[in-house]
Amino acid sequence: MSVTNRQVRLAARPQGEIKPTDWEHVDEPVGAPGDGELAGVTKFISLDPAMRGWLNDARSYVPPVGIGEVMRAGSVIEVTESNHPDYAVGDHVVGTFGVQSHVVTDGRGALKVDASAAPLPTYLGALGMPGMTAYFGLLDVGALKEGETVLVSGAAGAVGSMVGQIAKVKGARVVGIAGGPEKCALLTDELGFDAAVDYRAEDFKQQLRAATPDRVDVYFDNVGGEILDLALTRLNMKARIPICGAISQYNNETAVRGPANYLALLVSRARMEGFLVFDYATRYREAAAEIAGWIAEGKLVTKEHVVRGGIDDFPETLQMLFRGDNVGKLVLEVA
Amino acid sequence: MSVTNRQVRLAARPQGEIKPTDWEHVDEPVGAPGDGELAGVTKFISLDPAMRGWLNDARSYVPPVGIGEVMRAGSVIEVTESNHPDYAVGDHVVGTFGVQSHVVTDGRGALKVDASAAPLPTYLGALGMPGMTAYFGLLDVGALKEGETVLVSGAAGAVGSMVGQIAKVKGARVVGIAGGPEKCALLTDELGFDAAVDYRAEDFKQQLRAATPDRVDVYFDNVGGEILDLALTRLNMKARIPICGAISQYNNETAVRGPANYLALLVSRARMEGFLVFDYATRYREAAAEIAGWIAEGKLVTKEHVVRGGIDDFPETLQMLFRGDNVGKLVLEVA
Repeated sequence: MSVTNRQVRLAARPQGEIKPTDWEHVDEPVGAPGDGELAGVTKFISLDPAMRGWLNDARSYVPPVGIGEVMRAGSVIEVTESNHPDYAVGDHVVGTFGVQSHVVTDGRGALKVDASAAPLPTYLGALGMPGMTAYFGLLDVGALKEGETVLVSGAAGAVGSMVGQIAKVKGARVVGIAGGPEKCALLTDELGFDAAVDYRAEDFKQQLRAATPDRVDVYFDNVGGEILDLALTRLNMKARIPICGAISQYNNETAVRGPANYLALLVSRARMEGFLVFDYATRYREAAAEIAGWIAEGKLVTKEHVVRGGIDDFPETLQMLFRGDNVGKLVLEVA
Repeated sequence: MSVTNRQVRLAARPQGEIKPTDWEHVDEPVGAPGDGELAGVTKFISLDPAMRGWLNDARSYVPPVGIGEVMRAGSVIEVTESNHPDYAVGDHVVGTFGVQSHVVTDGRGALKVDASAAPLPTYLGALGMPGMTAYFGLLDVGALKEGETVLVSGAAGAVGSMVGQIAKVKGARVVGIAGGPEKCALLTDELGFDAAVDYRAEDFKQQLRAATPDRVDVYFDNVGGEILDLALTRLNMKARIPICGAISQYNNETAVRGPANYLALLVSRARMEGFLVFDYATRYREAAAEIAGWIAEGKLVTKEHVVRGGIDDFPETLQMLFRGDNVGKLVLEVA
């Protein structure tokens, strides 16, 4: 057992792709919990595309991670010591605890989870932020109706794999966009998508057209760039485009590529709408219960991509997201 | 009086800016109205930014104007002969009658208007499509609420001048973007805008920031391009962007410039939504009555830019729109 708290801190603001030197690895003394606090060890750390945005010094929905600060991250900890009435030693807690091996917290914004009800990484995936993002983005922002066609990019990722499956539960026809034949096979064979289109294929455009003969009512965008532009050419009248993210653009050193086909919104009387899952916090419990029900009924498969390692492996594991190496929710299990 | 029907027809699809050789001027025999038809002479022809889009051979909300076809245009005619029970000689009728001096029509999609209630060009402006576009785009798509801030581009144009004035009637703070100090002065001095920003000024960006201290709740976009991108940096939470047009992009020979700042939609949980006035046809009467009321009460000023000439002057008059030479609704009066 380590006797220090191992941390990954932001050393420099990345320009374009994140470099190893943008991080620093730091040992700190392990803190002791004060009155009303608890201490825990980190079991699983969430890796999210949004993390790239948190590193930029720009106006956004949360302040950027400061230089010298512990990297912000969601994680699951196991309680090792508690002066908090709601938590006991051995409990598992999900929260934004950062990339560090040891945590001391007052529990604000955290949530106790039941390791016997679901594997712990699932609380960072289907039952965590990606699941909530998919649920509210598709059903509230996307306003999906039964019988419509849903197109989702990043479909083999944490959010995309949930979007497609929730859409199937709701009676939609679902087409996923993913990179490579393996991911595409996963979508149709394991996750129940009606069709999958490989954006790395030379005939991607033709494939997409063939897979959406009735065009698209909801395009759930996780990637931006060329794929968003192409999706704009396949809209139905009154289509909705929830903008969840733009992973293809996050490492750009030049400006983001704007959707040149945005005037398709006019032709199709369609809308493009940004959203953030945090706005739905009061409804997380309701959504998580519904998703847990679908999992229990076998209507929804959870997918986690668990990398075992140490806190020091965070930077390299994060790169997997931008290379598209993960299938489902990418999680670092802290061994 | 001419004894032939003078027409402007599309000779070739323009690449980039429209050239004189993209049109042909044709004389046809004047037709006689059949049973249930009426004949008329053209008094006023509407010139609209959307016309540029109708010349492209691309999927859009209406079929393109065919090569060799009379150019599509809205106009006001005066009835000279009628076999139609609803129309008498001397009546004035608004419809999509095309760029020609003489019209024979069965009256479908046309509307009789009262020359004593408003000047005839107003039926092509404040009480016509531009007025309807402003009304439904701002109030339905933009969902404007009292006390909000409205930003509108192309603010001295036919639609923009109406958007700003309707927003004032509805209790909004209104900022207009226009080209040059004269137009900006018109907005604040004559049309009651709270502020005007000159996009041709060197410090446009600073001006816009200063004019929107409380940011923007509705950005009504007529122009696209750089101005749309800049407006995206000024959004309030839950802002709405009705996409009405993109006149800055219509003559592009290369791809349309997409809004590189579209991820501001995510940060601001905002939406961008395309619309077409034709979808609101069943409510035109209601909107026109309300606008006419505001005009009568002196709450709203109508602005028309009337160019006197002949049918042959249509191509040159149309160019004024793309140079931003007009103030208010641009109309060709056929002398």
